[in-house]
Amino acid sequence: MSEPCHLNLWVREDHKGFLETHYRVEKTLFSEKSPFQQIDVVETAGLGRMLLNDGIVMLSERDEFVYHEMIAHVPLFVHPNPRRVLVIGGGDGGSVREIMKHSGIERVVMVEIDEVVVRACRAHMPDVSCALDDPRLELRIQDGVHYVAQCRETFDLVIVDSTDPIGPATPLFNRDFYQQAAALLGPDGILVSQAESPFYDPELQGPMLRNQRPFFARLHLYLFSTLTYPGGTWSFGFASKGPCPLVDFDPQRVAAAGLATRYYNPGIHRAAFMLPTFVRDTLAGVLDPLGWPDPEPR
Amino acid sequence: MSEPCHLNLWVREDHKGFLETHYRVEKTLFSEKSPFQQIDVVETAGLGRMLLNDGIVMLSERDEFVYHEMIAHVPLFVHPNPRRVLVIGGGDGGSVREIMKHSGIERVVMVEIDEVVVRACRAHMPDVSCALDDPRLELRIQDGVHYVAQCRETFDLVIVDSTDPIGPATPLFNRDFYQQAAALLGPDGILVSQAESPFYDPELQGPMLRNQRPFFARLHLYLFSTLTYPGGTWSFGFASKGPCPLVDFDPQRVAAAGLATRYYNPGIHRAAFMLPTFVRDTLAGVLDPLGWPDPEPR
Repeated sequence: MSEPCHLNLWVREDHKGFLETHYRVEKTLFSEKSPFQQIDVVETAGLGRMLLNDGIVMLSERDEFVYHEMIAHVPLFVHPNPRRVLVIGGGDGGSVREIMKHSGIERVVMVEIDEVVVRACRAHMPDVSCALDDPRLELRIQDGVHYVAQCRETFDLVIVDSTDPIGPATPLFNRDFYQQAAALLGPDGILVSQAESPFYDPELQGPMLRNQRPFFARLHLYLFSTLTYPGGTWSFGFASKGPCPLVDFDPQRVAAAGLATRYYNPGIHRAAFMLPTFVRDTLAGVLDPLGWPDPEPR
Repeated sequence: MSEPCHLNLWVREDHKGFLETHYRVEKTLFSEKSPFQQIDVVETAGLGRMLLNDGIVMLSERDEFVYHEMIAHVPLFVHPNPRRVLVIGGGDGGSVREIMKHSGIERVVMVEIDEVVVRACRAHMPDVSCALDDPRLELRIQDGVHYVAQCRETFDLVIVDSTDPIGPATPLFNRDFYQQAAALLGPDGILVSQAESPFYDPELQGPMLRNQRPFFARLHLYLFSTLTYPGGTWSFGFASKGPCPLVDFDPQRVAAAGLATRYYNPGIHRAAFMLPTFVRDTLAGVLDPLGWPDPEPR
């Protein structure tokens, strides 16, 4: 080793006491305790910059495109004509960045409870937060639960880009919140929500989806890959007032839109809704059949 | 804490110096240095028993069903009438366990270089190694490269269930090996091979697939979820002398077979071949178009 000696600095994330993921850190870029949580941005050795809330990895620059493309483009290409979107959480700006790629979007309201997240990402994650100054965006620093309870606007999509159901995001997994969010949606409205790990968190997924069930005509789950959430594979809930994510999906619309994406494409759109047998079994009775491409395969 | 004080024992896996995954270990069950590698079986706190070769996680009881179902059932349900299968590596027995679920299988030859892997898994992973005494299996402790070079049998499938292209498995990623393996396959023959991480290992995937390219009519890649390989999402190469993994796939065959699977089903079969845009771009010119379900979507 001819290199000078560097500090051997690592950030460590615990998962349920039996699994730890450690990322080598070059330096800390941001560190501040907000009224809600500890916010840190670090420069890692292998995953670009990383945002952590209370020591839990929220996103890395290396893989955030997957999460943000999948939370945004899946519902945007299912809703017949999405113009108005409500984002709950999502303070890093990645979801808004993807939503704004759709030329039909007229208005986005983003309600983030913690201004420190927004400030940290504006300062240190410019490739993620780059659309936060889009004139179509109204950015509100406010509790999303309170906003939804008093809101009188109608939206085409509600995107719940939240942390886990511990800490400030807990009420975003409750029945009352889903009922109020559903009430803001038009007849083709869709609510997409961060839905944890199908491998590690089935005990969170079932109750969360059951809390959405009464307020939507269709309920589905879709999967995507991450590098920084425990177990890699992660999920979003897809709760719809009307459109089916597969039958009402037209790949030609994706081709015509010509968006620059690195993960999302029509094949991935459909594939994401194909669930492993153990996930189907765990959520039997909660999720709706897809009716595509076969009469519900086993 | 009223519990007695336990040894705080962890196994640590390094990935390229920037990422470490640590698993809490209850106890070590097996530890032996073979002529090829160090073999360990540990009882973990969250993932059941775990096999490590040279400190690299090979499998855990908690997620091994995904890898083994996907390496076996995907080609077995694409080949029109698979009866004879050659497995290179796979000493834990998981792939053989899944292959033997197919009633049409008449003969499986498994060629594992390291008898210590087989012995460790027979002793400590009975749910994985349970089919190693199936009378249809010929288990050979031999170098797979040498076996393939001198073999005069014909097979319907070759399954390369290997470790990474470092250590004893390195020649299994070479052009000569693929040429000789392809020569053992009948006209509908398929070779499936462990193909690393699409996120972390594109520099391994390209050369590996290019080495297969000259000897097969169709070359594809398919994805699956793991809990214990870096980044979670992992891949198999699918090299075929004839059948297309989607057009020649009949979900009714899966339904008729009625196999007990926890991950694999017809939806997952098709979904696995839908690749993220960045993977397609990275492997453009190497992989064949799928022609399903649309004219190759973007």
